[in-house]
Amino acid sequence: MRIVQKFGGTSVGSLERIRSTADIVEAELNRGNQVAVVVSAMSGETNRLIGLANEITDAPAERELDAMLATGEQVSAALLAIELQKRGITAYSFNGAQAGFKTDGKYVRARIKGVEAGHLMERLSANEVAVVTGFQGVDEKGNITTLGRGGSDTSAVALAIAVEADVCDIYTDVDGVYTTDPRIVEKAQKINQISYEEMLEFASLGAKVLQTRSVELAMRYQMPIHLRSSFDLVAGTMVSKEDETMERAEISGVAYNRDEAKITIVGIPDHPGIAANVFGPVAEAGINVDVIVQNVSEEGHTDLTFTVPRSDYHKTMQIMASLRDSMGARDLKGDNGVAKVSVIGVGMRSHAGVAQKMFQVLAGEGVNIQMITTSEIKVTVVVEEKYIELAVRALHSAFGLDLAVDSI
Amino acid sequence: MRIVQKFGGTSVGSLERIRSTADIVEAELNRGNQVAVVVSAMSGETNRLIGLANEITDAPAERELDAMLATGEQVSAALLAIELQKRGITAYSFNGAQAGFKTDGKYVRARIKGVEAGHLMERLSANEVAVVTGFQGVDEKGNITTLGRGGSDTSAVALAIAVEADVCDIYTDVDGVYTTDPRIVEKAQKINQISYEEMLEFASLGAKVLQTRSVELAMRYQMPIHLRSSFDLVAGTMVSKEDETMERAEISGVAYNRDEAKITIVGIPDHPGIAANVFGPVAEAGINVDVIVQNVSEEGHTDLTFTVPRSDYHKTMQIMASLRDSMGARDLKGDNGVAKVSVIGVGMRSHAGVAQKMFQVLAGEGVNIQMITTSEIKVTVVVEEKYIELAVRALHSAFGLDLAVDSI
Repeated sequence: MRIVQKFGGTSVGSLERIRSTADIVEAELNRGNQVAVVVSAMSGETNRLIGLANEITDAPAERELDAMLATGEQVSAALLAIELQKRGITAYSFNGAQAGFKTDGKYVRARIKGVEAGHLMERLSANEVAVVTGFQGVDEKGNITTLGRGGSDTSAVALAIAVEADVCDIYTDVDGVYTTDPRIVEKAQKINQISYEEMLEFASLGAKVLQTRSVELAMRYQMPIHLRSSFDLVAGTMVSKEDETMERAEISGVAYNRDEAKITIVGIPDHPGIAANVFGPVAEAGINVDVIVQNVSEEGHTDLTFTVPRSDYHKTMQIMASLRDSMGARDLKGDNGVAKVSVIGVGMRSHAGVAQKMFQVLAGEGVNIQMITTSEIKVTVVVEEKYIELAVRALHSAFGLDLAVDSI
Repeated sequence: MRIVQKFGGTSVGSLERIRSTADIVEAELNRGNQVAVVVSAMSGETNRLIGLANEITDAPAERELDAMLATGEQVSAALLAIELQKRGITAYSFNGAQAGFKTDGKYVRARIKGVEAGHLMERLSANEVAVVTGFQGVDEKGNITTLGRGGSDTSAVALAIAVEADVCDIYTDVDGVYTTDPRIVEKAQKINQISYEEMLEFASLGAKVLQTRSVELAMRYQMPIHLRSSFDLVAGTMVSKEDETMERAEISGVAYNRDEAKITIVGIPDHPGIAANVFGPVAEAGINVDVIVQNVSEEGHTDLTFTVPRSDYHKTMQIMASLRDSMGARDLKGDNGVAKVSVIGVGMRSHAGVAQKMFQVLAGEGVNIQMITTSEIKVTVVVEEKYIELAVRALHSAFGLDLAVDSI
């Protein structure tokens, strides 16, 4: 097998952790596999470098910031290669330029255009370990670019695709994706296999185990991602193409996000373009609007309700207050004490009634539903935040996700 | 004018120093000059990185060590570019690969084979500042290499040659080369102009203001080096081709080195090849032999005396002790309390009697000369270390180098 392994900042954050990481690489080699490794900067290093630049100016030239930040991974990749060589393993570090990562020219948030991995393929075929810097590449003029926070996951998937790996192992401090948050539901279970689509829904709901872009990329090229723990080498969660032959549970998991605020503009004169009028200024302010619900109310007026991250609540209310008058709206209401609960599952496509069941379960617990939104594989409701644990536990149990007692 | 400026680790060692360095760059731009800058790593950074590698192993893979060390300059170059951009100056950082520094493949001690500076030439012609990492390059396969300690001087000279600069300004914490050490001779004078050949002799005698390789390179391409202080922007010492029309003083300066030890093997059977027998094992141990004197003694036996750096004294004596027996030498003597004094000057080629005058001056002060060696532009003697200040002062005065009292 050919494997690309990705290790985050904590896995190379100290020399002790670098040794543990090298153990994992060595074990995979001993199984007869070919291994390329993608590493992040040592934890804390990226922030240290940003700090240096920010002491000079709040707005450092982004090209130069990228040139600085890219050094973090270059150091950790070299250190891991040194540790591997010390063990008699032939290993070389490669920075973004050397590994052939070509990106667009958008500094600080570049996107990978391709990986020219011919040289690395040769190294791997010779059973040599390539230790590659994550998070970075070069644009077509050779300028150093970085992919933005969390970009190393995407680097790893892109490299796996380029070297035609069998799997991309992403090592992290959790051992996989769970049916829900184990801190809320003791009987939460690790999911052994999950589809790309479901993983995207989990990721967008704040399950910060995998960067969304990396999942999208893996889905496009059908590269399996094995999300696993660097502390406990049991199998984690395999993210891969939906297996048609597999008997699916009704839903795969229950996700939630507390970090929500809800805003309603009441009684806007209803004519084409009002949504653009409302959400244009919000988008310009860099605020991500999530759930949107629009009701037609009496006499040609409508109500518009939407959610934003709680940290953007006050800024959004200010924008709305100035819009209210210019749009002739009757009222503006806000609530920064709401939360979002979703049930997710590719099985939903063939299982009618998931939404209905969800509503019944919540009604049975006395949880009032404030907003509803659905996608192909997800039903999301907005509820008062204080109900969140109750809602998650009730749904997890009702949809049959609780771990059987005798297997605890 | 097109100028390449080189700044060492202390000149980029803090954000305050980076600002001062940017002041110097900006002043040169304001004079209408084109500027490329070569920087070292922030002081302490190279040692920090070596320390990290050495915590893993005493013998880290040199390829990986170079990949790590090269990041030091990448960070300082980016920081200086950020500071310049903040002032409205168009400035970009370039690492060794980006700046086109091609080296051989000898990690840790690579030599520059050429600089493909077409892109940098364009930047300079557009009056943009190129901030280039010193000390590094890439080999023909794109592996990152470093030039060894002090390599940034050589990077700067090589870049100056490649971009056809008018001068290479090397900024340091001293304001030039002095006729002798001002700590010993209060009346030492700054030398305004010195030939490459003289500078090489000064440098090899421990005047650590310029790396020897950088002077050799500048001499080959006749690139003028202006050695000057980053604290005091007066003219420093210009190192350049010997000016034939200039009236030369008899000598340019008096140099010394305390760090010497002397070893004599007495009564070796004299036959061809004995020098190779003696110095072969010493060279293999990585010890630099400096002054060598051989006398023919009675009955086909000879004495051989040489000096080594004092820190290599004990190791050298061990090697000699084992050779003494195998070579049938009569005795072995060592003295690690000697020092070297030289008078240097291109004027010497046309001034007979410099050596004779030197011996007379030292005899007049009661200083016994233990060894003598001469080159085209230098006479060196080895004396007991305790005489060193006396010898330097007497020679400096006798050769007319003392600063006139009224100009102090």
